[in-house]
Amino acid sequence: MQSTMHDDVPLLVSRILTHGSTVHGRSRITTWTGEGEPRRQSFAETGARAAQLAHALRDELGVRPGDVLGTLMWNNAEHVEAYFAVPSMAAVLHTLNLRLPAEQLAFIVNHARDRVILVNGSLLPLLAPLLPRLSTVEHLVVVGPGDTSLLEGCAPRVHEYEHLLAGRPTSYDWPQVDERTPAAMCYTSGTTGDPKGVVYSHRSVYLHSMQVNMAESMGLTTADTTLPVVPMFHVNAWGLPHAVFMTGVGLLLPDRFLQPAPLAEMIEAERPTHAAAVPVIWQGLLAELAATPRDISSLRTVTIGGSACPPSMMRAFEERHGVRVCHAWGMTETSPLGSLAHPPGGLSPEEQWPYRITQGRFPAGVEARLAAPDGGFAPWDGTSPGELEVRGPWIAAAYFGGAGEPPLRPEDRFSPDGWLRTGDVGVISPDGYLTLTDRAKDVIKSGGEWISSVELENALMAHEAVAEAAVIAVPDDKWGERPLAAVVLEEGRETVPYEELRAFLADSVAKWQLPERWTTLDAVPKTSVGKFDKKVLRARYAAGELAVTEL
Amino acid sequence: MQSTMHDDVPLLVSRILTHGSTVHGRSRITTWTGEGEPRRQSFAETGARAAQLAHALRDELGVRPGDVLGTLMWNNAEHVEAYFAVPSMAAVLHTLNLRLPAEQLAFIVNHARDRVILVNGSLLPLLAPLLPRLSTVEHLVVVGPGDTSLLEGCAPRVHEYEHLLAGRPTSYDWPQVDERTPAAMCYTSGTTGDPKGVVYSHRSVYLHSMQVNMAESMGLTTADTTLPVVPMFHVNAWGLPHAVFMTGVGLLLPDRFLQPAPLAEMIEAERPTHAAAVPVIWQGLLAELAATPRDISSLRTVTIGGSACPPSMMRAFEERHGVRVCHAWGMTETSPLGSLAHPPGGLSPEEQWPYRITQGRFPAGVEARLAAPDGGFAPWDGTSPGELEVRGPWIAAAYFGGAGEPPLRPEDRFSPDGWLRTGDVGVISPDGYLTLTDRAKDVIKSGGEWISSVELENALMAHEAVAEAAVIAVPDDKWGERPLAAVVLEEGRETVPYEELRAFLADSVAKWQLPERWTTLDAVPKTSVGKFDKKVLRARYAAGELAVTEL
Repeated sequence: MQSTMHDDVPLLVSRILTHGSTVHGRSRITTWTGEGEPRRQSFAETGARAAQLAHALRDELGVRPGDVLGTLMWNNAEHVEAYFAVPSMAAVLHTLNLRLPAEQLAFIVNHARDRVILVNGSLLPLLAPLLPRLSTVEHLVVVGPGDTSLLEGCAPRVHEYEHLLAGRPTSYDWPQVDERTPAAMCYTSGTTGDPKGVVYSHRSVYLHSMQVNMAESMGLTTADTTLPVVPMFHVNAWGLPHAVFMTGVGLLLPDRFLQPAPLAEMIEAERPTHAAAVPVIWQGLLAELAATPRDISSLRTVTIGGSACPPSMMRAFEERHGVRVCHAWGMTETSPLGSLAHPPGGLSPEEQWPYRITQGRFPAGVEARLAAPDGGFAPWDGTSPGELEVRGPWIAAAYFGGAGEPPLRPEDRFSPDGWLRTGDVGVISPDGYLTLTDRAKDVIKSGGEWISSVELENALMAHEAVAEAAVIAVPDDKWGERPLAAVVLEEGRETVPYEELRAFLADSVAKWQLPERWTTLDAVPKTSVGKFDKKVLRARYAAGELAVTEL
Repeated sequence: MQSTMHDDVPLLVSRILTHGSTVHGRSRITTWTGEGEPRRQSFAETGARAAQLAHALRDELGVRPGDVLGTLMWNNAEHVEAYFAVPSMAAVLHTLNLRLPAEQLAFIVNHARDRVILVNGSLLPLLAPLLPRLSTVEHLVVVGPGDTSLLEGCAPRVHEYEHLLAGRPTSYDWPQVDERTPAAMCYTSGTTGDPKGVVYSHRSVYLHSMQVNMAESMGLTTADTTLPVVPMFHVNAWGLPHAVFMTGVGLLLPDRFLQPAPLAEMIEAERPTHAAAVPVIWQGLLAELAATPRDISSLRTVTIGGSACPPSMMRAFEERHGVRVCHAWGMTETSPLGSLAHPPGGLSPEEQWPYRITQGRFPAGVEARLAAPDGGFAPWDGTSPGELEVRGPWIAAAYFGGAGEPPLRPEDRFSPDGWLRTGDVGVISPDGYLTLTDRAKDVIKSGGEWISSVELENALMAHEAVAEAAVIAVPDDKWGERPLAAVVLEEGRETVPYEELRAFLADSVAKWQLPERWTTLDAVPKTSVGKFDKKVLRARYAAGELAVTEL
């Protein structure tokens, strides 16, 4: 027996575009301009302009299926046009993270073999100095005003976006490719080694877009307008540009105005019902609103991810502004939707909080397991930790190896049976709520049990004499690894007996987890984004540079 | 370049089951019992029992991948267990429509080659007389109490459901089959010819379930409980049993208690937030509630489909009971979700009505076009009619031809390029709203233009002397076809001049659409479900049995 369904209708980005620009042709993209009226265009116009862009890329720039096109752009309507035109014509959209260090940016452009870069005019000062190092770029397409004199004498041919589009046909016969064809790529900005490329397929983008639109996910409808503050160079702006074309949700784009003051202004003026960003943005917005009150009452929900969101901030948004915060977890390798913290039904608002501050539940498309210290898998009992591994149709099973090279499956990132090792350690409750407690590389593996460095640090930092604390694993003959506690004392405190700190810890931590080794630092070494740099601390310990007291 | 996503993770029914019974293991199925406490079981228990069922089917009944198992069951927890166990073990679930005439029921069991039938004990009086005609059934599994003496001496082996399950393992290593593998099948009960089988794949079921859960669709969350009054033998109860396992929505099942009084009682007692049924059920519920008031305030939305829903009923539910009705369109061949009538954003409640009474908008997974009278495709201008054709990953591209036979693609149901011809004629507005106006076989094809029989009938029936009116196409030398108007006069009216009726019609219908041929009937012939039987009327005209006046 065969299925009689139309199983060979592929799940394609072009289908999302065609749907959005016809059935939802009247929905709108609004791009903030910083001054005066925002720019507005309908989904129908966006579809027509995406077709014009594809014609220009094919006929003028010679772009062919499989070619890689980079975008160095902010969140604006032209970026959405590229999001749809490039994959729909079977080329690959490579969003470039404009916040990467110059050498990493050059590395990923060369590694992905970008033939074309679409660049916002305002970003030419960033791109121009890199050009001599870019070996594959043949064309630059400048979008919007900018100082093009910076490009004089550069090797790639330079085009102006609106000139390229002008007069071209407003429809395009999008090719019916296999749904496993690459659609887009994005590099992770790992703290160690070269950035790793993730290549999204049409299938993964399509399924992820459906997931974003599910009621139990971001739950957007045609009555909504969403504001993705998360940059479009960051994991496809969490899939929102694709998702809105599936359901006709209005799209409010901040362009380069990602600072608290313009965000507050655009929310008041354009009245989005939903927004998405990392915690630091919302923290800034809260402070801005306290200083300069604005009406943000249109916002019903904001989705927060990228790093753990302080519960105090979630409460502040709800209590001061009536905005519900939904905590989510994901990574570049997970498209990014990995989990969302919707509480179970039937609970009072207060009863919901313990669920809402977790990383949430996995959608059906994400299978999860916890790789336990003993080599097996930890039960979902809310207390047994393991490294989170995930698998699913929008989860990476490899990294891009380079043009013509096979995909990479480094064993610290992919299990032999193809699951993504997230590098996050946590627990899962019996009803499927994930709580992340540590990074796998920071966990202390002591005698077949795991000790969370973060838990010890948080407990230590609650002591009145401790300003900062970092806990790292150090080799131990008997246990394999044991924790070393490194503390920074509050200003004015000369010394605190380690015995006192250890006794203080014993109030909140199991006895076998208490550190024997202690040291005092002037400051905890930090990464460029302000996180504890435990790699440096481990190296200093290994080199014998720390004065360690053993209790 | 290759995608680095896990594109070979298949979309399987077993994945929905595993997800629902773990992450949402505490969600519940409640089955109404008519008296006393409803039966309640968790999704976790349902997953365990589905595994036990699969073990029993494999080890005791010898069921193998590809085997077809029929279910002759009401909406209850055991039917959900079969919904998941059978496809998950790579067999095919064939839901049997217990309202079909006996000869059709026997035909479809034999045509699909059902090896096993799971039957509710209460339905044995229906099944037993059919058994001598069933040529492929080897096993009967009786679910729940019933008069098993009716089965004495029957050829198939008889099993009792709970005995079969008892003591078997509560987990099963579900096979990782190709997502295009058949999962379920359902026959349409066409009014002409033999019933046609539609075979759903794992892929189509999975994608359709995601669609059901989208906010712009039924929009259910873990905070919801849904009541599918639509039978589980009718297009998979519109996909709800699968959908709820994807998101942990509570499931309230009415078992065989589909009458207005028990429905009102179970809504008051169990407080579902959503329900789904055909219009006639809701009409009955409205009348019941007027006679015996009940608290149905828990209901937020009801999804209505299956046939066009009278706007007056939609308004009555909203005004009397605060329940929002969402109109939907679909068919067995479309899984069934074809379109839903959510209004655009930004409209007042009154402004929403013209959108809400349409058949609605297509989701991204459903491509649509209107095959126009001239052989091309009609524009989406809200006025140009055409036969609706649809295509998508959960839309049929063929009918089941029988075991070992190739799929059927009758040309009146499938276009040469693989689109499903729905047999419905309608218009689509520029913003994608579908309004169905007629059945394609009833439309009058006059000189390259189409005349809607339904529109003429409705206009005629507005005349005070006309009780019923049926309009059919009759051959015409000049125009190909022209309308014949057949009227039934109100009681007490002996005669009405046809000229008067024609003049009355001219107020609301274009001049070229006015019928020249008229006849008067004592009654319009009707089908068994009360619809006008125009086939009979056409035959009577062709046989010269009607007294026709030509104006």
